[in-house]
Amino acid sequence: MVLVQEKMLPSLICCCRSFRKLSAIESLFGASLTGVSYSLFAGQPLTILGSTGPVLVFEKILFKFCNDYGLSYLSLRTSIGLWTAFLCILLVATDASSLVCYITRFTEEAFAALICIIFIYEALEKLFHLGEYYPVNMHNNLDNLTFYSCQCSPPTNASDQLLQPWNQTGYDSSDSVPWSSLNVSMCKLLHGEFMGPACGHHGPYIPDVLFWSIILFFTTFFLSSFLKQFKTERYFPTIVRSTISDFAVFITIMVMVVVDYLMGIPSPKLHVPDRFEPTSKHRGWLIDPLGENPWWTLLVAAVPALLCTILIFMDQQITAVIINRKEHKLKKGCGYHLDLLIVAIMLGVCSIMGLPWFVAATVLSISHVNSLKVESGCSAPGEQPRFLGIREQRVTGFMIFTLMGCSVFMTSVLKFIPMPVLYGVFLYMGASSLKGIQFFDRIKLFGMPAKHQPDLIYLRYVPLWKVHVFTLVQLTCLVLLWVIKASAAAVVFPMMVLALVFIRKLLDFMFTKRELSWLDDLMPESKKKTEDDKKKKAQEKLEEESRLEEEEECKLKVCFDGSNLLTIPVNSFSGSQEKVACVRVDVSPDSPGEGSTTETFL
Amino acid sequence: MVLVQEKMLPSLICCCRSFRKLSAIESLFGASLTGVSYSLFAGQPLTILGSTGPVLVFEKILFKFCNDYGLSYLSLRTSIGLWTAFLCILLVATDASSLVCYITRFTEEAFAALICIIFIYEALEKLFHLGEYYPVNMHNNLDNLTFYSCQCSPPTNASDQLLQPWNQTGYDSSDSVPWSSLNVSMCKLLHGEFMGPACGHHGPYIPDVLFWSIILFFTTFFLSSFLKQFKTERYFPTIVRSTISDFAVFITIMVMVVVDYLMGIPSPKLHVPDRFEPTSKHRGWLIDPLGENPWWTLLVAAVPALLCTILIFMDQQITAVIINRKEHKLKKGCGYHLDLLIVAIMLGVCSIMGLPWFVAATVLSISHVNSLKVESGCSAPGEQPRFLGIREQRVTGFMIFTLMGCSVFMTSVLKFIPMPVLYGVFLYMGASSLKGIQFFDRIKLFGMPAKHQPDLIYLRYVPLWKVHVFTLVQLTCLVLLWVIKASAAAVVFPMMVLALVFIRKLLDFMFTKRELSWLDDLMPESKKKTEDDKKKKAQEKLEEESRLEEEEECKLKVCFDGSNLLTIPVNSFSGSQEKVACVRVDVSPDSPGEGSTTETFL
Repeated sequence: MVLVQEKMLPSLICCCRSFRKLSAIESLFGASLTGVSYSLFAGQPLTILGSTGPVLVFEKILFKFCNDYGLSYLSLRTSIGLWTAFLCILLVATDASSLVCYITRFTEEAFAALICIIFIYEALEKLFHLGEYYPVNMHNNLDNLTFYSCQCSPPTNASDQLLQPWNQTGYDSSDSVPWSSLNVSMCKLLHGEFMGPACGHHGPYIPDVLFWSIILFFTTFFLSSFLKQFKTERYFPTIVRSTISDFAVFITIMVMVVVDYLMGIPSPKLHVPDRFEPTSKHRGWLIDPLGENPWWTLLVAAVPALLCTILIFMDQQITAVIINRKEHKLKKGCGYHLDLLIVAIMLGVCSIMGLPWFVAATVLSISHVNSLKVESGCSAPGEQPRFLGIREQRVTGFMIFTLMGCSVFMTSVLKFIPMPVLYGVFLYMGASSLKGIQFFDRIKLFGMPAKHQPDLIYLRYVPLWKVHVFTLVQLTCLVLLWVIKASAAAVVFPMMVLALVFIRKLLDFMFTKRELSWLDDLMPESKKKTEDDKKKKAQEKLEEESRLEEEEECKLKVCFDGSNLLTIPVNSFSGSQEKVACVRVDVSPDSPGEGSTTETFL
Repeated sequence: MVLVQEKMLPSLICCCRSFRKLSAIESLFGASLTGVSYSLFAGQPLTILGSTGPVLVFEKILFKFCNDYGLSYLSLRTSIGLWTAFLCILLVATDASSLVCYITRFTEEAFAALICIIFIYEALEKLFHLGEYYPVNMHNNLDNLTFYSCQCSPPTNASDQLLQPWNQTGYDSSDSVPWSSLNVSMCKLLHGEFMGPACGHHGPYIPDVLFWSIILFFTTFFLSSFLKQFKTERYFPTIVRSTISDFAVFITIMVMVVVDYLMGIPSPKLHVPDRFEPTSKHRGWLIDPLGENPWWTLLVAAVPALLCTILIFMDQQITAVIINRKEHKLKKGCGYHLDLLIVAIMLGVCSIMGLPWFVAATVLSISHVNSLKVESGCSAPGEQPRFLGIREQRVTGFMIFTLMGCSVFMTSVLKFIPMPVLYGVFLYMGASSLKGIQFFDRIKLFGMPAKHQPDLIYLRYVPLWKVHVFTLVQLTCLVLLWVIKASAAAVVFPMMVLALVFIRKLLDFMFTKRELSWLDDLMPESKKKTEDDKKKKAQEKLEEESRLEEEEECKLKVCFDGSNLLTIPVNSFSGSQEKVACVRVDVSPDSPGEGSTTETFL
């Protein structure tokens, strides 16, 4: 049931992502190849692979570097990839995956938060970028719409450079080109200039498309959020509600595609390649690691490969840790070594074939696991459905990547999907993945007066200011990661992710072990709370018992001490339940010098 | 504090409404005049007057009738108005307002629901109408934007009729008009034709405005809903939250105005007249009730006046009943007679001066009362704030209508407010007024499985199917009212509202008095529930006591009856708390013929 939705989503996303930077057909082929092998042989097939943000950042830097120094990007990339694969296998052989025990909730959540924020940021950024592709005339005079046009006209300073495209299309000079009858793409090809009140900076203003995209984007986001939480509504029988909830994103995409089709506004649509061949004609399916580069690049490639290895190791293992969390109640054990081995092998294969690299994608994996959750169905009204476990299998992963490979043949259907709808889905996935992150709960505490704070388990045991310090450290790490990722120093990004682990270690000096066990524990909040409540009750019972005993003792003392002792109704004094009220009034004549000794414990 | 928002809202709304059908300056003047007198002298100054839907419907029909039969609309309207005022005063004199006791929750909610739905419907309708004023090119080819224009051109069949506007502007023939250099309004004035791919049916396609309006509309709706419920959030101190919540709509409008201004899209803006004079030059500030009409119209006007009277009576009194509800905990008594008297007098004044009629507006009044609610501030987290009462005064009403009159001088500010933002506010007000209506809670029950139904008080005492029947009757009434309002028979609409009262009377035969007291009671749900819970507890306590007594009796009997009676541990038998377990086993040898008599009550 959940399968269909699972299939569609990441495949669409990958299609969509791939178009941003990497060539389409390689991306689809690589993803399909790697994903199928991973889902068949990996230790944790619930993880979904993808071309993740950090890896893309790394490739972007590499591409720029190659351009700057006149090196062949594809060849250098292949040698780096092979080195990385080798180093990863070395890590597997040396049992380095056991280091994941140092990846605590602190590291994990800072990283997951970063990835979620990148997801959300990119969704919004893409929407804003649409504003560049589809410029809008901000200061339109509706009364002058009769003069509103943007025609192509000859360039004002026609240089020789411009002659080339003219000659290619069969014109010999500027005068022979029928400028005013050129359409937008021809005008751009022939370097004509756009003239008229309907012209923006780089061509005519494009009416309606931007705002329609914004409407599609936010409607998708809100509709999918609404449908997803439909499970907890009171209307309709459980089966209807859970079906709607399971297929929320799928239904949303369908609805939006139909709406967009009926409106007919030429919004940007999803493009899928229609033939299976390398995008560029200058390359084949196998890449030479040396190529035109000097021989020493083969060896020097080990240095960036080291960075890349750290990145892939962290990315892969943190995601695996998140997926293998205790709170997911998985029955199948984890397989960090096997996971990394498969990733490393496929990384080598992808490098040789010139395909993008794929590694565990945090947001997609969390979405995947979330959609496979089994919850107790027949709950009393008001009661929250109980989480029972995950439907663990290899089928969904396998199907996702098989269908992703097949998506090349679904062009006729997929081309109706507007891009803003997919961006809206990104935003929804990013935002919904943020939900389970404790780090954000703690950030919210900053704006919350003490009396409104929820009954979080760590607030019971750790002073508020220490919780805030912990959050601030984590927040600083997150901001640093973000700044480094965006700055020129992006190449050290993998090191910074690794640094997170050490920063967490430093926290051992600031916080007691007990405090960290509450703040940085992998056990889910609800479970801890139940246990704590139980413990507390047990203790209260114990206290109550000891209180009663003491009271009895107390009474007994008063009663049995002699005839001239006052018998005081102790029970009526004990206002508070926790403290034991014990009043002893000693007025025995044995010690007349001291007068009366009155001890009161309240 | 709440004052500012209160001021702005209905005044804006009235401005906006007035433009739909009635002329602006009369509407503002009339509203100001009537509103100020009402808020100063009426029995229930919390009611806000407005030109309500039903009255507008009546005027629309009257206008059409006058046009069809060549009568002077303003004069006939004046005579009808005077008759209506007379009839209303007659109603006041004959103590007819005491009939409001027949207006139960059934009538009241059906009417309020109708008004809310009209509000929501009109907000959406206006948004859709924008699509006519600002047509969008649905099938635009972005590549051909260089040929995209819509120029003015000479009409294809130039008749003599068209010459007149040409001559007025100084042209003597079609050829002398510089068609291609005319702007849109000139082109329309000279009856030119629009030619080009950028032309819609009645002029050029207008880029961006429609979609921008849609964005403004929904953003306004969601933002004001979000800010309004900010009061119950956990963040920020109470004072910040309640301020944000109180000024929700005001903040929203401000934000949207700024956003709209920064975008610069020429969205439709609010128009306010800039001089104080009657809209039409053919009329003065006083209207002759006879005018050009035949003398008998003065008498015949009594017939439509009767309908109008029913309408105004129902509209006024139902709103007053809603405002005076017990659940509002008003300290000041109601004043149905006085209210109606003021309305009647001002109706006469407005009729003579040719101003629109004003009567209690349901949605505005409910919004007004809601925004004046006082709630207990310092509540424990999780606890719902308790409703303490209404800030009862005459100031808000007075200020609203004074400022409404002054709004003529605020043109420079008000002209920045986009209309879609106001429509969004309408939608929000309509939707939020629906919340308190029990009728909608009952409609929701249709889609709710029994186990998910909330613990509503009437569900405790009335069988579900009877609740459904009650809801269905009410729903049928609502649909009938809607159909009649929209159909040609709209003139009988006031009769139908009256009919609601009789339909409710008929329900007495279908339901028992007890059932109706649960379904059709004015007391608020929460209060009833508390009382019911109390009653139940008291009863349980009573039962418990009697149980204990009986038990003791029972035991005593067993113990004191003789030595050969079995003493049975009665307490261990009593499994249920409510039923009294009493086991008497009589094995006395006095009645050997009967054997053993065992009585068991379980």
